[in-house]
Amino acid sequence: MIQPRLFVVSAPSGAGKTTLCRRLRQEVPDVAYSVSFTTRPPRPGEVEGMDYHFVSLDRFEAMIEAGEFLEWAHFIDHFSGTARKTVQTHLDRGRHVLADVDVVGARQIKAAYPDAVTIFVVPPSFRELIRRLNSRGTETPEQRQKRLDQARVEIRARTMFEYLVINDDLDQATMGLIHIIRAEGLCMPRDEGFWTRFFEDAP
Amino acid sequence: MIQPRLFVVSAPSGAGKTTLCRRLRQEVPDVAYSVSFTTRPPRPGEVEGMDYHFVSLDRFEAMIEAGEFLEWAHFIDHFSGTARKTVQTHLDRGRHVLADVDVVGARQIKAAYPDAVTIFVVPPSFRELIRRLNSRGTETPEQRQKRLDQARVEIRARTMFEYLVINDDLDQATMGLIHIIRAEGLCMPRDEGFWTRFFEDAP
Repeated sequence: MIQPRLFVVSAPSGAGKTTLCRRLRQEVPDVAYSVSFTTRPPRPGEVEGMDYHFVSLDRFEAMIEAGEFLEWAHFIDHFSGTARKTVQTHLDRGRHVLADVDVVGARQIKAAYPDAVTIFVVPPSFRELIRRLNSRGTETPEQRQKRLDQARVEIRARTMFEYLVINDDLDQATMGLIHIIRAEGLCMPRDEGFWTRFFEDAP
Repeated sequence: MIQPRLFVVSAPSGAGKTTLCRRLRQEVPDVAYSVSFTTRPPRPGEVEGMDYHFVSLDRFEAMIEAGEFLEWAHFIDHFSGTARKTVQTHLDRGRHVLADVDVVGARQIKAAYPDAVTIFVVPPSFRELIRRLNSRGTETPEQRQKRLDQARVEIRARTMFEYLVINDDLDQATMGLIHIIRAEGLCMPRDEGFWTRFFEDAP
């Protein structure tokens, strides 16, 4: 009697959302993962259809035009988005779906699926977020400052989220997400199907 | 940063709520249990202050008059009720509280604590509920029929509850309650205290 739900996980940069979602996928294989479309090339180890659907810019633009995206965003050098069909297909099959998106994407998805369960992930403190961003050796000071400013704005958007998971310890944060997913699966059923079956065959 | 919540667990007769709550108390010792007041004498093995506060009818009536109860009910041969002070003391100390009450009591508590998390427990089917009620050898056919009629009415009140836990397997039902308690502890904090601490010491 599972009631399939859409779970939207979002976070400011530096919260460790991607690692957390990857871990969650291993722990709850019954929950489907909404694979995003992106126009950037695969990074080493990334698998088509597993990490992303890698598509051309032409294809992506055509999908935007056809209204196929629940949310999409333009990054510095590429586009990424979540297709409505990806999410809806899993829900129609009775599976929970997990979408790992940025804060702007989360707001777009919530507008389209008001029943979506929204989860915000943060590090234990802003100081720790700064430390994590600084430890990425690959960015210039300007890029780091830009990410930090963006993180501050994203944290301001927190009130739109229903749940808050603090990613201090990865095991604990993963367990928090699992509790949320399992508990939401126990919400009182709104359709009468369950109760019709419940009373069936009763003398 | 736990946000203490009141969890109200209710069920029709025959759902196995008492066994389930007893098990839950063992599994989540950090959650306080709201011990009810009752005017009936202790049954063998029942401990004062642990299972119930056993009080005289005079004392119970005085508590009703003083408005000390969040909910109370009159049974065939005794009164039982939940004191507001019991619940509020635990919440003030920052602990989750679990109240195990009947459906009418759940409605009274929800009216006083609109933030209370309400959970309804049912057996897998009405046929199974009948089987469980019939297996109690201690009741007359009239008493059984009365319990059955009451259970049917109580199940009609289901829409007031936020969660539904099916008590087929005791381990699974206990785990369901644990998921609900832990997930509700992760609700986005409404007070700003958490965020003040979050941004503290950030450069």
